[in-house]
Amino acid sequence: MQGVFNRLSSVARSLSFNTFTRNVSTAPAPKPTPFVLYTAGTPNGRKVSVFLEELRAVYGEKVDYDVEKIDIARNAQKELWFIKLNPNGRIPVLVDRAREDLVVFETAASLLYLEQHYDPERKLGFDPVSQPNDYSEMLQWMFVWWDLVSMTRLLWHGGVGPMQGQANHFNRFAPVDIPYAKNRYILETKHLYGVTEICLTDRDYLAGPGRGVYSVADIDGSGSGSLVFRINVHQFAGIESLDEWLSLQVSFQKHFVSYVVRSARKAVQDGLAIP
Amino acid sequence: MQGVFNRLSSVARSLSFNTFTRNVSTAPAPKPTPFVLYTAGTPNGRKVSVFLEELRAVYGEKVDYDVEKIDIARNAQKELWFIKLNPNGRIPVLVDRAREDLVVFETAASLLYLEQHYDPERKLGFDPVSQPNDYSEMLQWMFVWWDLVSMTRLLWHGGVGPMQGQANHFNRFAPVDIPYAKNRYILETKHLYGVTEICLTDRDYLAGPGRGVYSVADIDGSGSGSLVFRINVHQFAGIESLDEWLSLQVSFQKHFVSYVVRSARKAVQDGLAIP
Repeated sequence: MQGVFNRLSSVARSLSFNTFTRNVSTAPAPKPTPFVLYTAGTPNGRKVSVFLEELRAVYGEKVDYDVEKIDIARNAQKELWFIKLNPNGRIPVLVDRAREDLVVFETAASLLYLEQHYDPERKLGFDPVSQPNDYSEMLQWMFVWWDLVSMTRLLWHGGVGPMQGQANHFNRFAPVDIPYAKNRYILETKHLYGVTEICLTDRDYLAGPGRGVYSVADIDGSGSGSLVFRINVHQFAGIESLDEWLSLQVSFQKHFVSYVVRSARKAVQDGLAIP
Repeated sequence: MQGVFNRLSSVARSLSFNTFTRNVSTAPAPKPTPFVLYTAGTPNGRKVSVFLEELRAVYGEKVDYDVEKIDIARNAQKELWFIKLNPNGRIPVLVDRAREDLVVFETAASLLYLEQHYDPERKLGFDPVSQPNDYSEMLQWMFVWWDLVSMTRLLWHGGVGPMQGQANHFNRFAPVDIPYAKNRYILETKHLYGVTEICLTDRDYLAGPGRGVYSVADIDGSGSGSLVFRINVHQFAGIESLDEWLSLQVSFQKHFVSYVVRSARKAVQDGLAIP
């Protein structure tokens, strides 16, 4: 029944010897930590560590995890042993020791996996069976954000995001001046501002009833609160002003505050400090 | 509990008067067709119509659907009435009349929604509760492919795909010659060939036990069998030969055959003919 997991579990098992324990225990013969997280200090890696910390805040040591830091500066994620874990050669990768060293790759899939199996009280997401509409809404936003996040990947592993990352790249960092590419990505960045404006109007969170409920979709979408920060640095991306988006400016002010508040959650701070 | 759906359902209700019925019935006062699909002749639109046809092949009229063709050539998907359905302004959008005109946007989320609610025998996917590992594996591949597919969106709505679409664009269609951009995207296309090679080696389908089971992940990943066809047109994208990927060439031959066989499924052909 496990497909790719069975194929990979023996690899994960042999690799797990090399991990270091996040919370060093002084007790003899400690129980193995439930998870291993292969990660690096990128927005995607930190989404999973933030979510693990959110789960730890609710469920404690049941969701403790070892951290295996991947040196992406020297392309360790492209080495054969890592490709055997994730053929796409990207961090983060999660290994669940409690479920036969099952391997989960792709950030969003990892978040959904953790939510399904390790948040039985549904404090941070929705149940596919008993809350099917909220669950689907959560998935919809995750695929919207995933569109955007994936754009980053062409650039570099770092703190700039989605389409705006492309605009940044061609406006600031490309070794040659390419007005055509600049305009292309600036237009797309403007489109995304419009989507952001619509999706957060009259809402605090992306999915769920009323003004929404803090869930996997928000953690996946905001990364390190970067959605709002990205709007804040629009001039850097070649967009002169936000005058085209009058209500975006209002909601930016409003949501900036709520994102800052959320960023102040201890679990979020703890997760951002990994690795 | 429905969040965005409640906000949108009245819009969908008012819009559904304008749709035309796919199968024109001669019976008096026909029951409303279960679904409305807002779509266009693009790979993403066709993924959902292919999947609906696959479901119809198993479950019949329970999954009949009306088709509302969106004229993307004149940007109808950016008009206010459509943005109210999907703030991201993209087709396809699915409206489920049987579940209070619930609106689902994003291709992959629509496929997962249909699978969860309208494939009770799990002929075309996996159950999140009783087959959690296969379900997660299916999600993982969907997010991998979604990375790739999202790249297309910068270009145009059409038949070219993922990163290779970018490479095509800068190599063939861009109004100015940009060697820097060409090289950038050719490198990324080569990476994706490598991922493709790994993920299909010793497998017929992306998720599930053994050689895999035909599922939502394959429909989402392959579109109109285009993954393989894209490899076939590598020279068009500026990649001179496939010599770097020896086993890709072998698996390309092998999987090309299986994809052609799959493309010959009646449901796939029917779905590709929509709208």
